[in-house]
Amino acid sequence: MTVAAWFRGVAGVAGILLPATLAAQDAAAPAGGPAGGFVKEFGTMWTFDAPPLEYWKATYGFAPDAAWLDHVRLASIRLPGCSASFVSGAGLVMTNHHCARACISAVSPADTNYQESGFVARSRSEEKKCAGLYVDQLQAIENVTPRLAALEGAPLDSAIAAIQAACADAPDITCQVVPLYNGGRYSLYRYRRFGDVRLVMAPEEAISFFGGDPDNFTYPRYDLDLTLLRVYENDAPSAPKDFLRWSASGPADGEVVFVTGNPGSTGRLLTMAQMEYLRDVQYPDQLAQLERQLAALEAVSKAGPAARRAHENAIFSAQNAHKAITGYRTGLVDSAIMARKATFERDFRGRIEADPALRAQYGSAWDAIAAVQQERRGMAAAIRWHTLTNAQLVQLAGALVRYPAQAALPDSARLPQFRGPGLASARAQLEANVPVNPALDKLVLAGHLRAAAAELPATDPYLQAFLAGRTPDAAAAALVDGTTLGDPAVRKRLLAGGAKAVAASKDPLIVVARRLAPVIDPVAAQVAKQNAAISAAYGTALPPDATFTLRISDGVVKGFPYNGTIAPYKTSFYGLFARAAEFDHVPPFRLPPRWTAKRGAITMETPLDFVSTTDIIGGNSGSPVINRNAEVVGLIFDGNIEMLPNRFIFTDEVSRSVSVHSEAIVEALRKVYDAGWIADELEGGGARR
Amino acid sequence: MTVAAWFRGVAGVAGILLPATLAAQDAAAPAGGPAGGFVKEFGTMWTFDAPPLEYWKATYGFAPDAAWLDHVRLASIRLPGCSASFVSGAGLVMTNHHCARACISAVSPADTNYQESGFVARSRSEEKKCAGLYVDQLQAIENVTPRLAALEGAPLDSAIAAIQAACADAPDITCQVVPLYNGGRYSLYRYRRFGDVRLVMAPEEAISFFGGDPDNFTYPRYDLDLTLLRVYENDAPSAPKDFLRWSASGPADGEVVFVTGNPGSTGRLLTMAQMEYLRDVQYPDQLAQLERQLAALEAVSKAGPAARRAHENAIFSAQNAHKAITGYRTGLVDSAIMARKATFERDFRGRIEADPALRAQYGSAWDAIAAVQQERRGMAAAIRWHTLTNAQLVQLAGALVRYPAQAALPDSARLPQFRGPGLASARAQLEANVPVNPALDKLVLAGHLRAAAAELPATDPYLQAFLAGRTPDAAAAALVDGTTLGDPAVRKRLLAGGAKAVAASKDPLIVVARRLAPVIDPVAAQVAKQNAAISAAYGTALPPDATFTLRISDGVVKGFPYNGTIAPYKTSFYGLFARAAEFDHVPPFRLPPRWTAKRGAITMETPLDFVSTTDIIGGNSGSPVINRNAEVVGLIFDGNIEMLPNRFIFTDEVSRSVSVHSEAIVEALRKVYDAGWIADELEGGGARR
Repeated sequence: MTVAAWFRGVAGVAGILLPATLAAQDAAAPAGGPAGGFVKEFGTMWTFDAPPLEYWKATYGFAPDAAWLDHVRLASIRLPGCSASFVSGAGLVMTNHHCARACISAVSPADTNYQESGFVARSRSEEKKCAGLYVDQLQAIENVTPRLAALEGAPLDSAIAAIQAACADAPDITCQVVPLYNGGRYSLYRYRRFGDVRLVMAPEEAISFFGGDPDNFTYPRYDLDLTLLRVYENDAPSAPKDFLRWSASGPADGEVVFVTGNPGSTGRLLTMAQMEYLRDVQYPDQLAQLERQLAALEAVSKAGPAARRAHENAIFSAQNAHKAITGYRTGLVDSAIMARKATFERDFRGRIEADPALRAQYGSAWDAIAAVQQERRGMAAAIRWHTLTNAQLVQLAGALVRYPAQAALPDSARLPQFRGPGLASARAQLEANVPVNPALDKLVLAGHLRAAAAELPATDPYLQAFLAGRTPDAAAAALVDGTTLGDPAVRKRLLAGGAKAVAASKDPLIVVARRLAPVIDPVAAQVAKQNAAISAAYGTALPPDATFTLRISDGVVKGFPYNGTIAPYKTSFYGLFARAAEFDHVPPFRLPPRWTAKRGAITMETPLDFVSTTDIIGGNSGSPVINRNAEVVGLIFDGNIEMLPNRFIFTDEVSRSVSVHSEAIVEALRKVYDAGWIADELEGGGARR
Repeated sequence: MTVAAWFRGVAGVAGILLPATLAAQDAAAPAGGPAGGFVKEFGTMWTFDAPPLEYWKATYGFAPDAAWLDHVRLASIRLPGCSASFVSGAGLVMTNHHCARACISAVSPADTNYQESGFVARSRSEEKKCAGLYVDQLQAIENVTPRLAALEGAPLDSAIAAIQAACADAPDITCQVVPLYNGGRYSLYRYRRFGDVRLVMAPEEAISFFGGDPDNFTYPRYDLDLTLLRVYENDAPSAPKDFLRWSASGPADGEVVFVTGNPGSTGRLLTMAQMEYLRDVQYPDQLAQLERQLAALEAVSKAGPAARRAHENAIFSAQNAHKAITGYRTGLVDSAIMARKATFERDFRGRIEADPALRAQYGSAWDAIAAVQQERRGMAAAIRWHTLTNAQLVQLAGALVRYPAQAALPDSARLPQFRGPGLASARAQLEANVPVNPALDKLVLAGHLRAAAAELPATDPYLQAFLAGRTPDAAAAALVDGTTLGDPAVRKRLLAGGAKAVAASKDPLIVVARRLAPVIDPVAAQVAKQNAAISAAYGTALPPDATFTLRISDGVVKGFPYNGTIAPYKTSFYGLFARAAEFDHVPPFRLPPRWTAKRGAITMETPLDFVSTTDIIGGNSGSPVINRNAEVVGLIFDGNIEMLPNRFIFTDEVSRSVSVHSEAIVEALRKVYDAGWIADELEGGGARR
C-alpha cells in the first residue's frame, strides 16, 4: 500500500475529532462530558502541538501562553526509555533512580556497588560520566502527514527516511517521524541530543525502591526514586536557558499540576473484542510465560550471590511485567470498567453510523474485528506455542532468518515490526554487542518446550522442528551449546551474506529457525492483517495513543478511596520509618544504614511521596510534576495499582500517579546525604553558575 | 407448635455434624478440608462446651486441658453489648473504649467531657462508679434440649422461663436459655453478675477512635481502643481467682492466638437464595433507609455544637451500619465468595441427598426456600415501604398496637420477635424510660413518607393511613406533635389496659398504627413463615451461628495481601504519627494534645495494633486476645473491611481481626498517661493486692 492510499483510508474522519479541533468535538460530545469536548476515557496525554487550551481554561481557569508551553517543553528531556527534566541553569537533570541503573552500576568502582551504597558527588569535579548515555530535548513538532501523502507511490519507509534525514541538519540533531493514531497521522519530532551526561547523586536502592516488588505499583508509598545527573557540553556544565525552578512549598492538596514526559504505549483505541481477547487469551498466556521465565531466573540465581546480582534486573523486569499485566487484566475483568468501555464504544459507533460516508467506510469494522478476534481464539494453541520463546539466542536466530526475507518484500507486505523505520532498527539490534546468557536460555527454552510438549500433539511441526526426537531438556542444551550466534561478529557476517548465507548456515539454531519460519509466519501474518483492519476502523478519530514522545498531562493533587478508607494525598518520612518497623526491618523494608543513622536529624513530618490524577504510563518515569508557575513540585516514578487498567481506558476515581515530593528531595539531600550544595543549586532559583 | 414437635423436626440430623462430634464430621468432610472435620466456611466461633480439641491439636499441636479452658472462660466476661476480661487479681477489667462510652459520659463532671479529654484515675480512690453497668461471668453451660423436649405440650416460653428461674438460685446469678441452630438446640447459660463496675482509665476519643468513620472497619489501623474498668464487691476491689496475665512480649508474627468473647450474630446458615435476596433487595433497601436517616440526623445536627454532640452517637451508629452493610454486600456481589458458598451448598445438599431419611425430610427445602425468596422479590415494594420506619415514636406505636394481639396468640403463632422470651422483653422495652427525639422523628418520618409517596400509588392503603390527605411533611409534623407516646407512663397505662385500651386510644400515632397493622402484618407473617421453612431445612446440622454468648476462636497473627502489596501484621506508633501528618492533622486524624506533647517520650517503634485470622463479629468488641499460655497479647476492637462478608461465610485469606497490641497499652499508660501504677498492675503478674 502506498502512503497516499494509507492516508486516504483515514482521510474521511481526519479533522473531525482530532484533539486540535476541540470545537468540532463539542458538537458530537456525549452528554455530560466536560468542557472543551474532552472525552475522559481517552485521558490527558496531550501533544505539545495540540494543547487543550479551552479545556484547561474551563477546568482550572488556567490559560498558559505559548512561551509557557515552549519553556516547559524545552525543560523536559528524554532519556532512553525514560523521562527527565533540566532543574538548574547549570544543566542539572532530575530523573528516577530506576532510569539510571545502568550508569550507576557502570560508574561503580571495583570495591563498591553504588546501587547498594548510593553515590553523592561532593562537588562537580566528582561527577562521573555515564558512558553511552544521552538526553534528547524536543525542539519542534511538525505534522508531515500532508508531505507523506504528497509522495504518492513512494514506499513509506524511504519517504520517512528522507524526511528524517533532511530534518537532521546538524550533528547534534536527531529526527523521528512518529506514526500517531495507528498511522493515521505522522508527526516529525526534531530533537537536540546531549551526549555527555554525568552522575551527580543517586540514593541507595533500598530507599529508591523501598518496599521492592510488593510495594511496586502501589500507594501509599515511601520511595525516594531519584537520580540527579548533569549535562555537560565541551566538558563544562551545560547552561540551558529553559530549566524548571524549584517550588518553595511543594504541591497543596487539590492543586492543579502538570506532568511532562514520554508515555510509552497505551491501548485506548482497542475495541471491546480486542480487550476480551487480551483478557481471555493473550494475558493469561503471557502471565504463564512470565511465570516460566521467573522459574528459570530463580533457578540460575541459586548459583550464588553473584548470579543473583547478575539476574536481579531480569527478575525485577519479569516481576514488574507480571504485576503490570495482572493489573491490566484486573481492569478487563472489572465489569464496571468494561461497561464504561462498552458505553463509549456504543457512542463512538453511533457517531460513525450517523454520518453516511463514515458508515459506508467503517460501519462494519467492529463486527469484522470481533470476527477476527474469534478466529484468533481458534488459533490460541498455535499463537501460544509457536513462538520464539523468551530465550534470547532463539530470538536472535529467528530475526536473522527473517531479516533478509522481509527486507526483500515491499514495505506494506512486511511483518509490522519490519515496516518503515523498523527495518533499519531490526538490523541495528542484531548487530549490537549485547551480552547473552546461555545458561538462562537453556532453562527458558527447555521450560517452554516442556510446556508445549504437554499441550501439543507429538506430530506438531513446531515441536518436531525443535525436538527432532530429543527430550525438551536435551534439545535445549544441544541447541544452545551448539550455536555461535552469541557472537555479534557471527551475526554481522550472516546479515552481510543475506538470504544465501542464512540458507547455507549450519548453526543449529539457524537450522531450527529456518524450519520454524513456515510454521510461525502464517500466524504472525494473520495477526498483522487483523491489526491493519483495526487501524482502518479507527484512523485519527481520537486522541493519539502514547508513542514515547513528549506529552503534557493535567490533573490535581488528590487522595483517593482505598481499602475501605481514604489514602492521603501525601505520605511522610514518619510513614517510611513506620513501614520499616512494621515489617520488622526485613528487606525490602529495611532502610539503608545512612537513613537509620541520620534518623534523629530528619524532620519526620516532611512529605515524602504524593499522588495526583495526572495521566501517565511506562516511559513517564522521571517526568517532572510542575505547578502552574512551571515550578517543580514532584518527580513521577509510578502509578498506583488502580492505575494499571488505565492502559485501556482512562479513569481518575481511584487511579493515581505517584511522585516523589519536592520537599523530600531537599530534606534528604540536606539531612541524610550531606549534599547541601546540590540542594542549594535546586533551591537557589537555579542560578546559572 | 410444641417444643417436642419443634425439636423432632430437626432430630434427624442432630449428632451428625454438631461441632462436638468432630469424628463423625471427618467421615463426611469434603476432600481437602483441614484435620478434624473442620468446615472452614462455618468459621471458628466455638462454644466452650464443645471445644475442637482434635482440630487444635492437628493444626497447632496445642491441646489445652479442662483447667485451661475453665480458667479462660472464667477470666472472660460480658458487658452489655460487648466483651471484656479480668486482667488482674484486683478485678481490673479490659475492654474497648467504645464499649464504655455511656459510663465515660455519665461520670464526666459538668466542666469536662471525658470522651474528649480522657480520664485516668491517679489511684484506686479516684476510680468512678459506672451507674447501672454490670459484667457477667459465665459459670456453666447445660444442653437443655432434652429437658425442653420432655415437656411435650407445654408452651416453649413458659418452659424456658421455668428452667431459667430454677437456675437463678442466688441473687447474683442470672440464667438464659439460648436457642442455637435456629432453635434446633437449647443451651442454658448460667452467669454470675457483678453490679459494681468503676472507671479506671479511658483515653481520649481522638486516639481510641483515631481515623474515625473513614478508618472504621479497616486495617492498617492506629487506634488505642481501650478502657480499663474495675469490678468491686462490697466496696472493695474484687479478687477474681481467674484473670489473664499479661504477656511479656506480645504476639509474634505467625503465632497462634485465641479470642474469647461474645460474637453477636452471623448468618452462615443462610442459603444462596437468601443471600441473593439480601444482595438484591434487602440490603439496597436498608442502605437507602440509612441514607435517609443520616440526612435527617445531619439536618437536626445543624442547630449547633450541642445538637451535634447529642446526635453524634446516632450518626456514628448509622454510618457504622451503612459501612457494615456495604461490606456485607461486598461479599454477596463477589463472585468468588458466592461461588464458594455455592460449592459448600452443593456439598451440603449432597450429604442430605446421600441419606434417604434426610433426603425425605429436607431434600426439597432449598427449592422451597428459593421459591419463597422469589415470592418476596414480588413483594419488594410492600416490604420496602410498609414498615414502621426508623422514627422511634412510630415504632413505639406499632409495638404498642401489636403487643396485646401477639400476647393473646399461642407462642408458635406469634411473630418471631414475640416468641419465647421475646414477649417479656418486648414489654420491658416498651415500659423503659428511653429518651425520645421528636424533631428527628419528624424528619425521619417525613423522609420515609416522601420516598414512599414517590414510589407507591396514591391509593396505597399504607400511604393513606399515614397521609390522610396531607403532605408527607404536614402529616409527619401533625403525628409527632400530637402523640403522647414519648411518656413512658402513657405507654405503661396502654399496656396495662390491653387490647381494649389500644382500641380506644385517640393518640394520633396509635390511630395510624391500628390502621397499619392489617397492612404490615401479612408481610411480616409471610417473612416469618419463610424463616420457619429455612430453620426446618437446616436444624442443627452445622456449628451454631453467633448468639452473643461466650465463644473461643483460634487463629494466627498474620498480615495479608491488600492494595496490590502486603499489609504488615502489626502497625506502630510511627504509623500513627504518619497518618496524622499525612492528613495535615485534620480530624478525625488529629491527635489529642497529650499525644503531641508527649511525642518525644514515646518509643516510636512500639507496636500499636495487629491482625490475626481469628473469627469475630460485632459483640466481640473488647475481647482479649491470648496466647497458648492464656496471657493477654491484645484487645480485639474491629475487623478489617475484608472481614465484613464473613457474616455469611468464613474466609481467612484476607479477612482479619484487628486488635490493640498489648505493648501499646503499656507504652501509652507509662509514656503518655503517666499511669505507671496501672501498667505495673497489668505487668506485675496481676498480683492480688
